[in-house]
Amino acid sequence: MNAILVVGSVGYDSISTPKGHREHILGGSANYFSLAASLYAPVRVVGVVGEDYQAQHKQLLESRNVDLAGLQQVSGKTFSWEGKYEKDMNEAITLATHLNVFENFHPAIPASYRDSQVVFLANIDPVLQLQVLEQVKSPRLTAADTMNYWIHSKKSALLNVLERIDIALLNETELRELTGEWNTIRAAKQILQMGPKAVVIKRGEYGFVMFCQEQFYILPAFPVENVVDPTGAGDTFAGGFLGHLTQMNRPWTREDLKQASVHGCLLASFTVQDFGVEGIARVSGADLSKRLDAYRGVIS
Amino acid sequence: MNAILVVGSVGYDSISTPKGHREHILGGSANYFSLAASLYAPVRVVGVVGEDYQAQHKQLLESRNVDLAGLQQVSGKTFSWEGKYEKDMNEAITLATHLNVFENFHPAIPASYRDSQVVFLANIDPVLQLQVLEQVKSPRLTAADTMNYWIHSKKSALLNVLERIDIALLNETELRELTGEWNTIRAAKQILQMGPKAVVIKRGEYGFVMFCQEQFYILPAFPVENVVDPTGAGDTFAGGFLGHLTQMNRPWTREDLKQASVHGCLLASFTVQDFGVEGIARVSGADLSKRLDAYRGVIS
Repeated sequence: MNAILVVGSVGYDSISTPKGHREHILGGSANYFSLAASLYAPVRVVGVVGEDYQAQHKQLLESRNVDLAGLQQVSGKTFSWEGKYEKDMNEAITLATHLNVFENFHPAIPASYRDSQVVFLANIDPVLQLQVLEQVKSPRLTAADTMNYWIHSKKSALLNVLERIDIALLNETELRELTGEWNTIRAAKQILQMGPKAVVIKRGEYGFVMFCQEQFYILPAFPVENVVDPTGAGDTFAGGFLGHLTQMNRPWTREDLKQASVHGCLLASFTVQDFGVEGIARVSGADLSKRLDAYRGVIS
Repeated sequence: MNAILVVGSVGYDSISTPKGHREHILGGSANYFSLAASLYAPVRVVGVVGEDYQAQHKQLLESRNVDLAGLQQVSGKTFSWEGKYEKDMNEAITLATHLNVFENFHPAIPASYRDSQVVFLANIDPVLQLQVLEQVKSPRLTAADTMNYWIHSKKSALLNVLERIDIALLNETELRELTGEWNTIRAAKQILQMGPKAVVIKRGEYGFVMFCQEQFYILPAFPVENVVDPTGAGDTFAGGFLGHLTQMNRPWTREDLKQASVHGCLLASFTVQDFGVEGIARVSGADLSKRLDAYRGVIS
């Protein structure tokens, strides 16, 4: 079926930014991803939550055509993250990470999910990312993100993941640490030597670099005057990117990847305009169309 | 006459980057600017050098249709700068600045320069920038750059400059320090409150932001794989930007500013590909056309 499977974190965040503070709000890569991707196609979540996970948060996702059959609920507390941003909103400072029920998480893909055409492995342990790849049938498209912690602690598993996926989505810090190369253009080329057919570099307020079939495609982000909370922007980008590709319903072309990158970038611009998932949760197709038009005016 | 007047530094630099080291090579904002702008229109330089300034460096500029009647040669040594770049090539680390003859410099505009239609005030003391504005007849277009040192030490003179010019060209650090605002979009809007009709924010490898008549225009830089030495990229940008506008030979429109920004950005991509002025000094119109075509493929 033309649905997207995502495996990632589902949790609660406490966030301070120059624009304010929020305690224990809905977060996690799988939630940001799902809220974005579900604007395009049905989304299926694999993850784990504890006993404290609130029914209203399941309902929010289900109201957006997100299937939670693969979201295990177990005894213990839900994953949580505390972080802050100072003047430079491009960089999150982690104050605390409580893995809680995530510590013993092993992804189990429900039988009803196995025919998913598109698979996104959010930035979880690459050993778990491999377990997911082994459980799905032959998807049309696989993509993965990672984070510096795994680059340093589980590099060989991560390299195995990269060998097996179609598209890597990374930010510039991850790109540098993974390749040892500071030049983004050279580093992007190195990633393709590791296995993926395409790489998308997320650059925050500077937009993105997409490299595929020997061709770079580079654009800035949508100009946002009031950045409230950048948390989840990268996962939102991935959701818009893969959502757009899933909707295409055919093997993707480079042109599709270009348009998908723009969709990812623009959806991320909604996420940063409010705390947590508030910004992306209220985006409609009409909002996105309007922003696509405004964006064309900015870049051409 | 349809010529550009530039006032700025002319000097010698010693530069270390991850790609190598060069001692006492030609540098200075006026030289980078002139080599770029002279691809479009006659350029007239106002500046100062010492007895040690080499004839070959005057000849290089003169061979590119750059008028050096306003380049004073006085007793003493020429301005020099020593700097280095580490892995992050976006940021220069100054090791030493020797003002030398620049310390007592007062710009004197030759009578033959006074009808210049376009005036660029490179990042010298804003008190001197004001002296230049007082000596020129009514130019069609005036633009200025600055640097953090003047933002902190001579802010009121700098604000006077901004009140009197048409276009400000700044990098993101200068933009933040001048406005106290970290968000580039809000900060750009603040600059227009200070007087200029347009502002161009130079973002190094991330390209530029141009803001004018309530409209933003934002694009990335040309992807350069082998960045050798970023020195002079900003001054080269200004040269390409104003060179393109001078060539237009009529009051500029927002569309002209967009195209001019692209020209500035692309010429800067040649500068960073070699040490000092070597990269920009050998660019031909054909090279620029070829890069314009390649750039269109990257952004569309």
